[in-house]
Amino acid sequence: MTRTPLLPLEWQGGRVWVKAECLQQGGSFKLRGAFNRLLQLSQSERERGVVAFSSGNHAQGVALAARALGIEATIVMPADAPAVKRDATRAAGAAIVAYDRMTESREEIGARLAAEKGCVLVPSFDDVDVIEGQGSCGVEIAEQLGASPDKILVPCGGGGLSAGIALALPHAEVVTVEPQGWDDMARSIAAGTPLPVEEPAPPTLCDALQTKLVSPLTLDALRGSGARGLSVSEDEIREAMAYAARHLRIVAEPGGAVALAAFLSGKAGPASERTVVVVSGGNVDPALYAEILAAQAARTS
Amino acid sequence: MTRTPLLPLEWQGGRVWVKAECLQQGGSFKLRGAFNRLLQLSQSERERGVVAFSSGNHAQGVALAARALGIEATIVMPADAPAVKRDATRAAGAAIVAYDRMTESREEIGARLAAEKGCVLVPSFDDVDVIEGQGSCGVEIAEQLGASPDKILVPCGGGGLSAGIALALPHAEVVTVEPQGWDDMARSIAAGTPLPVEEPAPPTLCDALQTKLVSPLTLDALRGSGARGLSVSEDEIREAMAYAARHLRIVAEPGGAVALAAFLSGKAGPASERTVVVVSGGNVDPALYAEILAAQAARTS
Repeated sequence: MTRTPLLPLEWQGGRVWVKAECLQQGGSFKLRGAFNRLLQLSQSERERGVVAFSSGNHAQGVALAARALGIEATIVMPADAPAVKRDATRAAGAAIVAYDRMTESREEIGARLAAEKGCVLVPSFDDVDVIEGQGSCGVEIAEQLGASPDKILVPCGGGGLSAGIALALPHAEVVTVEPQGWDDMARSIAAGTPLPVEEPAPPTLCDALQTKLVSPLTLDALRGSGARGLSVSEDEIREAMAYAARHLRIVAEPGGAVALAAFLSGKAGPASERTVVVVSGGNVDPALYAEILAAQAARTS
Repeated sequence: MTRTPLLPLEWQGGRVWVKAECLQQGGSFKLRGAFNRLLQLSQSERERGVVAFSSGNHAQGVALAARALGIEATIVMPADAPAVKRDATRAAGAAIVAYDRMTESREEIGARLAAEKGCVLVPSFDDVDVIEGQGSCGVEIAEQLGASPDKILVPCGGGGLSAGIALALPHAEVVTVEPQGWDDMARSIAAGTPLPVEEPAPPTLCDALQTKLVSPLTLDALRGSGARGLSVSEDEIREAMAYAARHLRIVAEPGGAVALAAFLSGKAGPASERTVVVVSGGNVDPALYAEILAAQAARTS
């Protein structure tokens, strides 16, 4: 596990830091939760291997954690997942089973594989050990700051990272950030019950945040901490990715940049005394990344 | 000062880490040396301010260190320095004096400004306090590894960073890396005396490494440690920049990527038990960066 840096971001009227989880091994925070979950396995469970389904970042997290612990991993991954994520998952030693996002259910495939092999399925967010593992990111932040942040903006798919951080940092105001049209967590927090994404959901660059229904576990943790949720546009996400490259020198994937987009756009309100913005991942297709940076450079020059 | 992360790089036959100095405040290692030099100033020297000349990274390092210590800074900068470096230096609160690299001497302008104001000139590498400050990068690496690396590849302009690291890590094999045609340090190490760059030097993307003559101070430190030098091509540098974005999720500027280029190309030899590659800076013009990443993505897809 890498102790990812907390990078200072100059800001008037408050102090702001960016927690660069894109620098975690596997390119996202996902290693934290996967590792914590796999550490709970019995010896016989370890020997039977594990299965996970994921669009990419959780896949890499599980693959790397499994390899570190000498466990076989099989990952169920959409056939159209970014090549950068698929290749890295394979490079980490996992077996990949591809499925069609339009016609097949990854839940069913994952459950079938787990039943066939008698092995444990590692959920990407709906699991107390996974959530606790992601919370180690919050623990690190408090150690690095020497105090709890008073405000923390977190990218949100299923809510594992934001819920883990909310539990680890009970004195921080947690703000979950999602792409516009995919803000099921924001609506679920407001409603007090899990609400699915409204169909048809708009296209989004954020392949890592296309979760259609949050879990009671993550929702309850967030509601219990008084969290609120908001959403950002695709343009705001692109701007945040370019800002991250230019001013922080980090590569943020679209889904990893949503909290930074919420801060830079002003949607998350002013900086507080200790605001932390989490950049949760950096696995983006190289051609798409170059295209986004080129378009942003042309806009601002 | 940010404790920059040491990012693991998977490699067969050895272990390799990248020291991501592009994540340092100001986007390069330069803050380390500037800060250490400014800490040596007397109260009356502090009050008269400081002057420095730099193509950009040293400028930002001096500007940020000066601001942190409440000292006025004036930076002599080429008129064609990358806008990303000029803007950031201004944003850090320094005054900028532009000069023409073809017709004017920055040394003369710097010396005149220093004489007029009676203030200290902060050299970018030819200074024991600056070299010692850059060496803190080496101290951090040993702390983070829990041992000295046995091999360390370092981008080299005037040699301040590589000399500081050589002094801080006496048991490591230090390899300086320069762009092809700008390998005056490699040639000076081999000759045992400072040799200037051979004119006309070829164009290079590495604006941070266009030093035409190394100093006896840095050369002696490197020779004393048994260092050797090598050089890399512009194509190898572009490939390393794309590799850094894709596999490390960091933004490396051309001059910051030369040591990584030397490793990836095989020019620096095989990985040892503990090899460290320093990525020294990440301040690159956004349009140029996008162009390089796009070309590399097209080549590999």
